[in-house]
Amino acid sequence: MIPIISIVGKSDSGKTTLIEKLVPELSRRGYRVATVKHDIHGFEVDREGKDSWRHKQAGAHTVVIASPNKVALIRDVERDLTLDEIREKLIQDVDLILSEGYKKDVQPKIEIFRKGKHEELLCTKEDNLVAIVSDKEFDVGVSCFFLDDVKGVADFIEKKFLRLKAEEGITLKVNGRNVPLKPFIRDFLSGSIKGMVRSLKGCENPQKIEIQIEE
Amino acid sequence: MIPIISIVGKSDSGKTTLIEKLVPELSRRGYRVATVKHDIHGFEVDREGKDSWRHKQAGAHTVVIASPNKVALIRDVERDLTLDEIREKLIQDVDLILSEGYKKDVQPKIEIFRKGKHEELLCTKEDNLVAIVSDKEFDVGVSCFFLDDVKGVADFIEKKFLRLKAEEGITLKVNGRNVPLKPFIRDFLSGSIKGMVRSLKGCENPQKIEIQIEE
Repeated sequence: MIPIISIVGKSDSGKTTLIEKLVPELSRRGYRVATVKHDIHGFEVDREGKDSWRHKQAGAHTVVIASPNKVALIRDVERDLTLDEIREKLIQDVDLILSEGYKKDVQPKIEIFRKGKHEELLCTKEDNLVAIVSDKEFDVGVSCFFLDDVKGVADFIEKKFLRLKAEEGITLKVNGRNVPLKPFIRDFLSGSIKGMVRSLKGCENPQKIEIQIEE
Repeated sequence: MIPIISIVGKSDSGKTTLIEKLVPELSRRGYRVATVKHDIHGFEVDREGKDSWRHKQAGAHTVVIASPNKVALIRDVERDLTLDEIREKLIQDVDLILSEGYKKDVQPKIEIFRKGKHEELLCTKEDNLVAIVSDKEFDVGVSCFFLDDVKGVADFIEKKFLRLKAEEGITLKVNGRNVPLKPFIRDFLSGSIKGMVRSLKGCENPQKIEIQIEE
């Protein structure tokens, strides 16, 4: 599962700027990053009169515009999606998701705090705060970084979130919901399926197996 | 797997207009439709200076902009994606994908042809042509519809592509590639996994099972 970290902070604390610095730093280290931003005012993705705009106007639930170097998509949703849902429905082929905001979501958070501007922290450890980026030191049981220490924050993210891939093993969803698996069941299910799949022609060395069964 | 149909035809044959009529007709019948349009000239998804635009400029591979009623995404690709890849990477929660163009893709095609404008058909049955929409009748072994017969085309799509869901059963991917399964193997794999999953607490009635295993 792609790890998600939310960069949170009061308005004008420098969230976008921190993301603008973290993305190239993490990219230089070989990671692909996706970002997520909430925009309550809505947005325009396409220009009036264009074919894809006409498709959406006609009532298409989802419209994709594809080109040789980028792809855009716009789709309807019935309510605000959680970061977990955004990851599941939309994001592939990246190593990390950084959201700007989403302080009420359950994902791990890094808060930016400026002492001249802010009175107190927005989040606590109970909100899944994992680090603070600030010009002030805090003793709240999470890692602290100075405002300009982009390398330090990137090291933290790399160490804490990007080196866990190999431990994932197996995920199971039934009727759309993740089913938590105890270690024994994980091993049993994973071993049995790998055994079956390996016996199929051309599948002797499965690195990744995906199965979908519908009634 | 969500069915894909490509609406093809020479330039100015009325592809966008047909899609504009088909989408509401299919929506009225209760189907959710996604559309795909190729735009070789590229496109702008966001306005300069906006936070999400700054994320992309900073080098994010994927940028998502979320609001309570729609979500937009823009992501890098290394080459033109096939319709199959677009379906896999980007599209969820719809019943049908209609592409405008994509005549070289392998997906089933409906061609629009106007006798005053065109000399000959763009596609044949070998190109997976399944129907023609035209002001001329053709005898090439595929269904023909008049230009204004949107209901007829929708009936055809519904009958041929939208009523097969129940027969899908199981799909298996190993190392990212679909593995074709013979009926016996389908039943064996599907039955074994369903048996295992049903024995887990809260999974007694699995309508849909998704499993992902990584080494």
